[in-house]
Amino acid sequence: MSTPPSLASGPEGPHALRPLLDTVLAALDEGARARGGPLPSGGPDAVAARVRDAVGDVLPDQGDPNALHHLVRALAEGAADPADPLCTAHLHCPPLALATAADLAASALNPSLDSWDQAPGAAELEALVTEALAREVFAAPAPHETPPAPHETPPTPHETAVTTRDPQAGPPRRHPSALVTTGGTESNQLALLLAREAHGAGVRLVHGANAHHSLPRAAWLLGLPEPVVVPAPAGTLDPVALDEALTRLSGPPGSLLVAATAGTTDAGLIDPLPDIAALCAAHRTRLHIDAAYGGGLLLSDRYRDLLTGLAAADTVALDLHKFGWQPVAAGLLAVRDPRDLAVLHHRADYLNADDDAEAGLPDLLGRSLRTSRRPDALKIAVTLKTLGRSGLGRLVDQVCDTARAFAALVHDHPGFDLYDPPALSTVLFRPAHATDDDIAAVRRRLLTDGRAVLGRARMDGRLWLKATLLNPRTRPDDLAALLKLVEGNTPR
Amino acid sequence: MSTPPSLASGPEGPHALRPLLDTVLAALDEGARARGGPLPSGGPDAVAARVRDAVGDVLPDQGDPNALHHLVRALAEGAADPADPLCTAHLHCPPLALATAADLAASALNPSLDSWDQAPGAAELEALVTEALAREVFAAPAPHETPPAPHETPPTPHETAVTTRDPQAGPPRRHPSALVTTGGTESNQLALLLAREAHGAGVRLVHGANAHHSLPRAAWLLGLPEPVVVPAPAGTLDPVALDEALTRLSGPPGSLLVAATAGTTDAGLIDPLPDIAALCAAHRTRLHIDAAYGGGLLLSDRYRDLLTGLAAADTVALDLHKFGWQPVAAGLLAVRDPRDLAVLHHRADYLNADDDAEAGLPDLLGRSLRTSRRPDALKIAVTLKTLGRSGLGRLVDQVCDTARAFAALVHDHPGFDLYDPPALSTVLFRPAHATDDDIAAVRRRLLTDGRAVLGRARMDGRLWLKATLLNPRTRPDDLAALLKLVEGNTPR
Repeated sequence: MSTPPSLASGPEGPHALRPLLDTVLAALDEGARARGGPLPSGGPDAVAARVRDAVGDVLPDQGDPNALHHLVRALAEGAADPADPLCTAHLHCPPLALATAADLAASALNPSLDSWDQAPGAAELEALVTEALAREVFAAPAPHETPPAPHETPPTPHETAVTTRDPQAGPPRRHPSALVTTGGTESNQLALLLAREAHGAGVRLVHGANAHHSLPRAAWLLGLPEPVVVPAPAGTLDPVALDEALTRLSGPPGSLLVAATAGTTDAGLIDPLPDIAALCAAHRTRLHIDAAYGGGLLLSDRYRDLLTGLAAADTVALDLHKFGWQPVAAGLLAVRDPRDLAVLHHRADYLNADDDAEAGLPDLLGRSLRTSRRPDALKIAVTLKTLGRSGLGRLVDQVCDTARAFAALVHDHPGFDLYDPPALSTVLFRPAHATDDDIAAVRRRLLTDGRAVLGRARMDGRLWLKATLLNPRTRPDDLAALLKLVEGNTPR
Repeated sequence: MSTPPSLASGPEGPHALRPLLDTVLAALDEGARARGGPLPSGGPDAVAARVRDAVGDVLPDQGDPNALHHLVRALAEGAADPADPLCTAHLHCPPLALATAADLAASALNPSLDSWDQAPGAAELEALVTEALAREVFAAPAPHETPPAPHETPPTPHETAVTTRDPQAGPPRRHPSALVTTGGTESNQLALLLAREAHGAGVRLVHGANAHHSLPRAAWLLGLPEPVVVPAPAGTLDPVALDEALTRLSGPPGSLLVAATAGTTDAGLIDPLPDIAALCAAHRTRLHIDAAYGGGLLLSDRYRDLLTGLAAADTVALDLHKFGWQPVAAGLLAVRDPRDLAVLHHRADYLNADDDAEAGLPDLLGRSLRTSRRPDALKIAVTLKTLGRSGLGRLVDQVCDTARAFAALVHDHPGFDLYDPPALSTVLFRPAHATDDDIAAVRRRLLTDGRAVLGRARMDGRLWLKATLLNPRTRPDDLAALLKLVEGNTPR
């Protein structure tokens, strides 16, 4: 019998990993040189053909010992590298080397967070990260915060864990909680699910026309009624229109769920959160805030105030693979009242039998809709702890400053129109006098030539080029080069 | 302004990663030595306290440059290491060093599979992997396979891509497809969603009492009716009972979805797939097979025949983080008729505007319910290509042989009862004359002492200890030691 290939953990793990990691680093380097720009040139068919040539038969009868090198090289050559300053289309951040290295340990040890006996240490690490971030979200008192209602059902073990009992303090104070998700999309799904389970399958989502597409998609997924879309003429949810909609739709408390956005995908704008929170309180309506993009401002002393009102939400989506510089996935759903999570409780005897729970084995299954689950909390914890609030805040400030610098460049350039000064790190701009078709064409030309990755957004009825600046190493020269590229490639 | 921390990609990426990876490898090694066994000792409270001590404040104001080392060390010390032969409770595999190293490249480059301009090469790599695995699943002709129905709606671009048009062949032949998921749980959710969208929200899930908990949970998630549970008295779905249920429930075609299991979580058993497929054909009922565990047998010449009937399913869940030796996540949902996937089509102008799709930019958004999405296909591709069908098949054979060796040891030991000879790699056993409470107690004692990680399963009305053998490096000595440990720790 032949010797099986090496495992990533166990006593030989680190030793076996070292030469393979050397291969990966060399292949990443070679692939990036072969690409020679922010993305591969030639467009979709040419890129696909090169990948197919490099891979050959992906499942041959006999193995190929050089596959690691060839495939990683092909991935790198075929990448849109978010660390390249001209790759700036999407909320697609360049990950920190630190977070990426930490993530290797998660892969090697492979703890799975569906039961304590697969992840004894990782479970506690996740608890520390989620509690810290939930505290950060709900630190400020919410405008309509009321004392928690007395217990109607006995506390679950998890609930007990997040409750502080102080004999002098009256009713127990419950600490906010958070679940780790695959990203804002799953966080939005979970927020809708918690609302559905609290208030019934008739609960109706009310969201702005500026909301992320995953919100109506989640309503479809969960079998909820067709959402109500409130106008967002200036790119943010209009409170007057929201008030009208809530008045028109009014039913029993909980029949509606309002979703607001802190950091829109198209323009990086923040809905008027205090106004929306006040309306939700007045209409006794549940509030979810999708802060997948803007939530990172929590760590910035300079920008944190833009999130005033966030703490009034029942649930908040965060995404540390945007501001946070994590490799995908690093999503969270922060939940103000941890009792809301009881509906996710789920029994599977092999993972959380009653007698095991009674004997003190933690029950992790209700922390996710997934079963096997990777500890994304490790890379997040390493990043938070290594940089601290100040270090992460500086990164946020830096990319927001870069966006302002780019906006200024656009503003001062006679050949370009600027949509608006950036609220976060998104800049919308367009060559003056170009048509929408020209705008779409220049974006595709730069993509096809492998010269720049820019996004697109429709605002005010016109198509704009979008630069989402998430790279803390982008310099003024890069921004000037980006503008020059667009100028030189716009059809005349 | 201070220099921002290093990024994982860009020209400096590999250089910046190298010392950090050295730190990770050293910390993994130190942590494993400090643990000194398959899992940390002392039980949940003690393990949690050690992690809290090692981490301190996870979000301090000022950063801590040693956090990477400390946190990775804490994770390793607190791990239940699946590469330890005595860590054998769950479908929790020890990942290959190869797959783990490849996954680092995915983290470093951070391609996100929701749009081509974030993942030009990764998108093609994923297509190659999913096509190859879908072909593997649906290679054998299904018993009730009928020629595909003529198109009722014009093909979508994706549909065209997976259709081969041969002028002599009559109607076009459609190649099966597969979606990458976070695991069997998401695959099962998607299978139910495809059934719901094809046949309406009244579609009722019919599953065995032996099915994975994620199946009824998915029905709840998607707002479907309460599932019908068919008895599985011997651990596999009883075809006579299924026939009765399908006859009793009969409605219009598509009103039911049968879910069968190839590799149950409790006992590693395979439902009688050919019988079930024939019943589904006779009753014109859609069939999903959860092969999250057993699907790996496809790559084994010796065991592949156990999966006869698999190709008759409409959808099949696979999980390469079980047999497949990938770090979590590495799930797939294979889909026989790619037209079923059209219901996942979804428009978000910033990711797949109509004019971009018309100009040839691939539309990836309909390949998942997630938006940002990590290329788990890379580690899978590297593993398939490096080992080939023969190398992976050998690993499957090896762990199945190990399970047979362990079952023989149990069988020959007068102090133990064996549940049944293993079908895959799961062995259920119990100390003779022990009570169920004793069984539960010895498992918890071994966990708390940090000496072995065993699972549990209730079969035939009794509680059994469960060894799920997934480690190709486990040796006969390890198995003897495991049995001795249980013997020495069973309450008398």
